[in-house]
Amino acid sequence: MTVRDVERDAMHRALALAVNGPAGFNPQVGAVILEPDGRILSEGWHRGAGTPHAEVDALSRLSPGEAQGATAVVTLEPCNHTGRTGPCAQALLAAGVSRVLYAVDDPGVVSAGGADTLRKAGVEVEAGVLGDEGRELLSSWLTVQRLGRPHVTVKWAQSLDGRAAASDGTSQWITGPAARQDVHRRRAAADAIVVGTGTVLADDPSLTARDPDGALRADQPRPVVIGERPTPAGAAVRRHPREPLFFSSRDLPGVLNDLRREGVQRVFVEGGPTLASAFVRAGLVDEVLAYVAPALLGGPRLALGDIGVATIDAALRLTLSSVERLGDDLLLVAHPTTAPSPANAKDD
Amino acid sequence: MTVRDVERDAMHRALALAVNGPAGFNPQVGAVILEPDGRILSEGWHRGAGTPHAEVDALSRLSPGEAQGATAVVTLEPCNHTGRTGPCAQALLAAGVSRVLYAVDDPGVVSAGGADTLRKAGVEVEAGVLGDEGRELLSSWLTVQRLGRPHVTVKWAQSLDGRAAASDGTSQWITGPAARQDVHRRRAAADAIVVGTGTVLADDPSLTARDPDGALRADQPRPVVIGERPTPAGAAVRRHPREPLFFSSRDLPGVLNDLRREGVQRVFVEGGPTLASAFVRAGLVDEVLAYVAPALLGGPRLALGDIGVATIDAALRLTLSSVERLGDDLLLVAHPTTAPSPANAKDD
Ligand SMILES: NC(=O)c1ccc[n+]([C@@H]2O[C@H](COP(=O)([O-])OP(=O)(O)OC[C@H]3O[C@@H](n4cnc5c(N)ncnc54)[C@H](OP(=O)(O)O)[C@@H]3O)[C@@H](O)[C@H]2O)c1
Ligand SMILES: NC(=O)c1ccc[n+]([C@@H]2O[C@H](COP(=O)([O-])OP(=O)(O)OC[C@H]3O[C@@H](n4cnc5c(N)ncnc54)[C@H](OP(=O)(O)O)[C@@H]3O)[C@@H](O)[C@H]2O)c1
Repeated sequence: MTVRDVERDAMHRALALAVNGPAGFNPQVGAVILEPDGRILSEGWHRGAGTPHAEVDALSRLSPGEAQGATAVVTLEPCNHTGRTGPCAQALLAAGVSRVLYAVDDPGVVSAGGADTLRKAGVEVEAGVLGDEGRELLSSWLTVQRLGRPHVTVKWAQSLDGRAAASDGTSQWITGPAARQDVHRRRAAADAIVVGTGTVLADDPSLTARDPDGALRADQPRPVVIGERPTPAGAAVRRHPREPLFFSSRDLPGVLNDLRREGVQRVFVEGGPTLASAFVRAGLVDEVLAYVAPALLGGPRLALGDIGVATIDAALRLTLSSVERLGDDLLLVAHPTTAPSPANAKDD
Repeated sequence: MTVRDVERDAMHRALALAVNGPAGFNPQVGAVILEPDGRILSEGWHRGAGTPHAEVDALSRLSPGEAQGATAVVTLEPCNHTGRTGPCAQALLAAGVSRVLYAVDDPGVVSAGGADTLRKAGVEVEAGVLGDEGRELLSSWLTVQRLGRPHVTVKWAQSLDGRAAASDGTSQWITGPAARQDVHRRRAAADAIVVGTGTVLADDPSLTARDPDGALRADQPRPVVIGERPTPAGAAVRRHPREPLFFSSRDLPGVLNDLRREGVQRVFVEGGPTLASAFVRAGLVDEVLAYVAPALLGGPRLALGDIGVATIDAALRLTLSSVERLGDDLLLVAHPTTAPSPANAKDD
């Protein structure tokens, strides 16, 4: 069976509907129900954890029997398991839908299999319709599904010789304005900016994502502070447009799990050195952003401390995915060559 | 006055003659004496310290009076001072030469001025004939004249986080084969490879420049070991094709001065970290080659230790002149943004 233009149009519409839903712990999903002649019968989207899935939402707008022989166009494979909302595959069958198109396979171990269920019941199923667009929409969520935890980027600024500050602790500015602007741009793409208590106490950062002119950007990731020491009442982070999260803990897998439950899919760890090293040591880093200034500092203030590597064969090898000049500085984007730890890794 | 083709040809010939002489403390210089009709009367070149300069060598092949009205084509401005060999400007005047062409101005404070002397005596002088070729030939020597000491390249291999080895001291191999091959190629272009006693005692390196297949290259820089501890009788460096130099000293300006007197114009400092840091601290680095492996090591074994920078404003800022991928690794070539110290700098 081929996919008709009117069905492809409906998938575009479903993808657009999906983004009405919140990004977070649950995926953004959209659905369109078409009459056999291609006319749109109803639309729906997923409004977040505990609410009806997109296809059930769309069906709920129809009278009984109205979807008989209809085509369901959904951005994610209809689920097969009975969660808080019941399996969508069964709902589609019950409504009498005879054809289903979807963009992205359900990556869940429990929830996958909806397409098979539908096929076995005699429904025509087309998978991967506008698959690339679908995967792009769900990229963060799919990453979380694969890792079982949020995606972690660890960023630091260093001199060529690996220092985060001069001997006396001064570090403004190791890198130049172009590098700092790039950080703000990337911050805005994360769901949470994470720092250790050491950085809060030393630098009192605002942890906002700002434009080059200093204005707040529209997207503000949630500020997160990790560590047992309290954050002072007057700390700048407490005046952040989004309410900060304080974890009085050093259990990084635990913190990531809690963040995931808050709907955080992309974490941007901004240091300092102790916290960055702890993330690396725990194998909880998916991406490294090293802003390297062409300068030598020497001395004891290292961008990374002990990361638990005893011998050269145990080095954490990275794959450089890009090397970019930003003003006088270099941005190295790298990924661990061996896969980092999934959700259940322990920090040891 | 314009320069005739036959004179330009003579300059090419003089440049070719120059390389017959040894590269070292003195410049390589060639000279051709032309009859007014462009026929070559004689040729000469400089055979090293204490021997006649090129133009005097060429004149010495002629009978008295033979150079009357002739044109002298020399790669370097004829000198004006009475050194071990007497001023060349006077020798040219005494021989009755009526026209002089040269490629490169004499950069020496004492020796410069030959062109003026000749002009004042009524000789036609054309400066800068094939100047670029002349400067390329003399590039190392001109650098030594400018700096008053050999040109110093400091090379190291490091992980992204600035480590030269893992915690247990293992460092083979931080960088890959392409980076190591590049080191051998660049080694061969230096006059001396310098290491500290620490590296000799820890690694027992051979300090030879080798081809990818392990064969010795034709050009072997002189191996140099600096430090007060003795080098063992059986050390590999003692089997180097060129006799090693041992400086039982930590006085880097003094060592550079001695190397210069040995005819060394380009020094390649290969470490280890203590010696590299000492060169940086003393402001005696003209070029940094950092081979950066995309790996994280953490721990205490740093590629650079203390370089005497106390605060961020005192950082040794570098200008990146190239960023190159060598296999998985990066080679960063950089130069201090503020000029390094000349010969009389003290290591403090
Ligand atoms: N160059 C850069 O990119 C950069 C970026 C940020 C900061 N900095 C500089 O870094 C300095 C602060 O460094 P820092 O290392 O003290 O700060 P930090 O890494 O921000 O904070 C360290 C603290 O993090 C907490 N923590 C949470 N989980 C942990 C774990 N699993 N293991 C260990 N500690 C954990 C601990 O706090 P508790 O002790 O409270 O439990 C620890 O003391 C400042 O001077 C700042 O300017 C540099
Ligand atoms: N990653 C790399 O690129 C690289 C390159 C080479 C070596 N390495 C590693 O580095 C380690 C050796 O490190 P290292 O730092 O001990 O070796 P090093 O730098 O080769 O030698 C240090 C010694 O140099 C002498 N020295 C001479 N002038 C000095 C000065 N002005 N200031 C201070 N010292 C001066 C001193 O010797 P005395 O005490 O005898 O006076 C000092 O102990 C080895 O494990 C080796 O594998 C790494």
